[in-house]
Amino acid sequence: MVILGIDPGLAHTGWGVVETRGPVCRARSYGCVVTQAHESIDLRLGRIYTELRRVIEKYGPTELSIEGIYFGENTKSAIATAQARGAAIVACSTAGLSVGEYTPMQIKQAVVGTGAADKHQVTYMVKNILALDHEPHPDHAADALAAAVCHANVSRTERLGKERRALS
Amino acid sequence: MVILGIDPGLAHTGWGVVETRGPVCRARSYGCVVTQAHESIDLRLGRIYTELRRVIEKYGPTELSIEGIYFGENTKSAIATAQARGAAIVACSTAGLSVGEYTPMQIKQAVVGTGAADKHQVTYMVKNILALDHEPHPDHAADALAAAVCHANVSRTERLGKERRALS
Repeated sequence: MVILGIDPGLAHTGWGVVETRGPVCRARSYGCVVTQAHESIDLRLGRIYTELRRVIEKYGPTELSIEGIYFGENTKSAIATAQARGAAIVACSTAGLSVGEYTPMQIKQAVVGTGAADKHQVTYMVKNILALDHEPHPDHAADALAAAVCHANVSRTERLGKERRALS
Repeated sequence: MVILGIDPGLAHTGWGVVETRGPVCRARSYGCVVTQAHESIDLRLGRIYTELRRVIEKYGPTELSIEGIYFGENTKSAIATAQARGAAIVACSTAGLSVGEYTPMQIKQAVVGTGAADKHQVTYMVKNILALDHEPHPDHAADALAAAVCHANVSRTERLGKERRALS
């Protein structure tokens, strides 16, 4: 299974492509779409959509994993993120990817084992789980890879559960 | 000039296509993309994008007019609107439309003459300005047509100003 993880943001949208074989996850590629505050909103959202479509065409993921939106942060930044999230989901939805949404706590728990992990712990564990020879940067890309790993774990647990129920 | 006005929302995205000839504005078509709360976010945003792309292909607008996002409303509804807005702007941006953003007050002022107008006044004036034989419904479509009329007025005023300066 090839999973695209996305950490959406108007200025930085991190992405990471992870391939699973049984319990093993490996990173195919990762990166970050950067837009500038002085650019118009249509250019910024258009670039997020176009770059993510290129990633989808190149690596052929069938699933998207993305953080849900929560209301803890300030409204202005939540609204900017929500617009970027709309552009990112449209890129995946129109390419036929199915979508898994997770809370920040679920993602941290999947890679570090605790929902209270900090950014450094997430980056460190993403490096180890994916057997990278370096820590992935920027943070947005590491968070996107972490979302993909979370989806891989959840999908595998669900599949094993189904197989077990079918056998019993 | 053919202008697409959009009033974005996750449940209802109103759209209206207006054609200008000198000071005269006429509606080419209008409608509303409806999505249901029980549908997944990727289906909902995907439909907003796809339907708007159909409208753009059919009527060939070169400009998008859309309300900016303001922080008066509650955060949850503002975030839902922001995601729909992201999907709508991507549909227009990737089709090469240029984007004009206006405040709700600018749009009301353009069609009613006062920023304090209510929904009925906006719908009534949109009918008259566009010489429709009926009031456009739903409200979302009327608001989208009003946004297009606002952009037509602003563009015409800017063009006349430039011509005047060139002559003087």
